[in-house]
Amino acid sequence: MKPSEGAGRSALLTDRDGEKGALHALPAGGEAAEDPWKECMETAVQLALRAGQVIKKALTEEKRVSTKTSVVDLVTETDHFVEELIISALREKFPLHRFIGEESTSAGSKCVLTDSPTWIIDPIDGTCNFVHRFPPVAVSIGFAVNRELEFGVIYHCTNGNMYTGRKGHGAFCNEERLHVTNETGIRNALILTEIGPKRDPATLKLFLGNMEKLLKFQAHGIRVIGSSTLALCHIASGAADAYYQYGLHCWDLAAATVIIREAGGVVIDTTGGPLDLMSCRVVAAGTTELAQSIAQELQTIDYGRDDDN
Amino acid sequence: MKPSEGAGRSALLTDRDGEKGALHALPAGGEAAEDPWKECMETAVQLALRAGQVIKKALTEEKRVSTKTSVVDLVTETDHFVEELIISALREKFPLHRFIGEESTSAGSKCVLTDSPTWIIDPIDGTCNFVHRFPPVAVSIGFAVNRELEFGVIYHCTNGNMYTGRKGHGAFCNEERLHVTNETGIRNALILTEIGPKRDPATLKLFLGNMEKLLKFQAHGIRVIGSSTLALCHIASGAADAYYQYGLHCWDLAAATVIIREAGGVVIDTTGGPLDLMSCRVVAAGTTELAQSIAQELQTIDYGRDDDN
Repeated sequence: MKPSEGAGRSALLTDRDGEKGALHALPAGGEAAEDPWKECMETAVQLALRAGQVIKKALTEEKRVSTKTSVVDLVTETDHFVEELIISALREKFPLHRFIGEESTSAGSKCVLTDSPTWIIDPIDGTCNFVHRFPPVAVSIGFAVNRELEFGVIYHCTNGNMYTGRKGHGAFCNEERLHVTNETGIRNALILTEIGPKRDPATLKLFLGNMEKLLKFQAHGIRVIGSSTLALCHIASGAADAYYQYGLHCWDLAAATVIIREAGGVVIDTTGGPLDLMSCRVVAAGTTELAQSIAQELQTIDYGRDDDN
Repeated sequence: MKPSEGAGRSALLTDRDGEKGALHALPAGGEAAEDPWKECMETAVQLALRAGQVIKKALTEEKRVSTKTSVVDLVTETDHFVEELIISALREKFPLHRFIGEESTSAGSKCVLTDSPTWIIDPIDGTCNFVHRFPPVAVSIGFAVNRELEFGVIYHCTNGNMYTGRKGHGAFCNEERLHVTNETGIRNALILTEIGPKRDPATLKLFLGNMEKLLKFQAHGIRVIGSSTLALCHIASGAADAYYQYGLHCWDLAAATVIIREAGGVVIDTTGGPLDLMSCRVVAAGTTELAQSIAQELQTIDYGRDDDN
C-alpha cells in the first residue's frame, strides 16, 4: 500500500512561534526523494508541532482531570482533543491508513497492529506532568508498515525540541544528529525509568525491588521524569545510558523505538528477547551489553498486553 | 556589616548569548534602592550567568571525573573551576564576607554559618547529570546575614532559566513571579526527591521505603531529576507540590529556600520542626499541611551534619 501523493515536499519545517522545532525530517537528496513514507513523516512533524501549540496553550489554563485504570492514571480534555486533532487530519490525508491512539484505545477501539500502514499516537505523553505543569510533556507519533516501525516523531511541548527518526536515515533532535552512549555496564550508568500506573502493594514492591538492584550495582543514578517518550529520547541523545519500564504502551514506545535504533541503540523486551511492541515492557540502551545486563536483573511486573482488548 | 558600595545598579541583566536569563533581580523603585544587599544579589546573578556559560561550554567537552564520599558521589574539574571563579570574584568585591562552597568544604574548609554575611555556593548542582549530559544542571548561590537567608539565585544552565528570590520581595523565574501550589494532601500530589550519595543496603531500604509510603498514599507521582536545587525551584514555580530529601547539603538548600519561601511555600526539617540548614535533610512544599504530612511519613536517613567537619 502506498501513501497518497501530494504536498509536503519541504524537509525543513519551522515552528510558527519561532522557537526550536525546525528540523530536517529527512536528509536531502535523491535518497529522500525515493522514500515512500516521506510525506507521511513530514505530515507527522507538522501535526506534532500543531498539537504542541494546543498543549502549550492548555498548560496556561485550568484543567478538568479524569482518571482511567487507577486514581493516578489521568486523562484530560486536552488528551482527547489533541488525539482527535491528529487522527482526523491524518485520516483525511491518508484515508486507507489505520490508527492506534491512547485515548481511542481507552474508549474501546481495538489496539491491533496489522500489515496496513498504521499510525501509533500518544497525544500527551506525560499527562500527570501536564496536569501539574511539570515540564516534560510530549506528543508522540509513530508509524509502522507491515508491522515494522518506519519512523517516529516526538515533540517536547515545553522546550520545543523535535525528535525524529526514520528507518535507515538516522535520528535527530531538531537538526542535530543523535548518538547513544557506549556504556556497557550498569555500574556507572545513568538509568531512567517510570513508576507506571499500578500502585497495589505487590506492584510497588516489584518496582522498588528493581530500582534497588540497579542502585546496588552502583548505577550512577536513576531518574524518573514522568514522560516515557522523552526519557527514551534522552537515551537516543546520549544524555542517559538506559531505560526500562513495565506498564508503558505501544503509543509510548513506537516513535521512540525508531529514534533510539537510528541513534545506534537497542530496544528489547525485559526478558532479553526481541521487543514486542504490545507487551507493555521494554529495556532500551546504548549498547546490547547494557540492555541485556539490565534485563537480567529485572523482575517482571505484569501489565497485560495492549492487544488483549 | 555592610557590603561595599559600587556598581551594579541595573536590576535588569541579560545573558550575553541572548537566551533567557534576563530578570528583575529586585522590584524597581524606592524599596529596592534601600535594600542593603541589592548589589550583592546583582553580583550573584551576573556570576551565575557567567558560571553557566562555563558549564555549558564544558558540557560539550570530555570530562575527567573523580569521586568523593562514594563511587557515585562525583566531582569534575569544572566543579572546582566554577567554584573558584565565583568565590574569587566575590572575595575581591566583598573582602569581608565569608564563603561556604561545596568543593572548598570537600577540600577541608570549615562549613560553619556565622553572623557574618556568608555566601553559600554550589558551583554545579547535578554533577552526575553534568557528567552524563542529562539536562538539569544548575549554579546555586545563596546569601545569609546573621544566619538568616537573604537571597538566592539559581541558574539552570541548559535551559537558561534564572530563578531568584529576595527576602520580602518575592521570587521570580526570569521576569515571571513564582507561586507555589495550594495542594494540602499527599494523595494527588506530585512529589520530587533525590536518591542521595549513600548506597549501602540500609540506606537504600530507607530511601525506597519512604518512596513506597508516599506512593501507597496515592501520590500522583514521584519524580527524580538529579538536581536538588532545580527540583526545589519546581516547587517554587508550582510545577510540583512537594520535595523531600536526606543527604543534601546547605549549598543545595540555601538559595532554593529563599526562593520557595518567597513563592509562598514552606521549607522545614524532616522531623516537622524548623529547617536546620546544616542538617542535610529537608521537606519543602506549597503548604504547611502537605509538608507536615510528608514529614510524618518519612523515616530518617542519617547523613550527619554539614557543620560536623
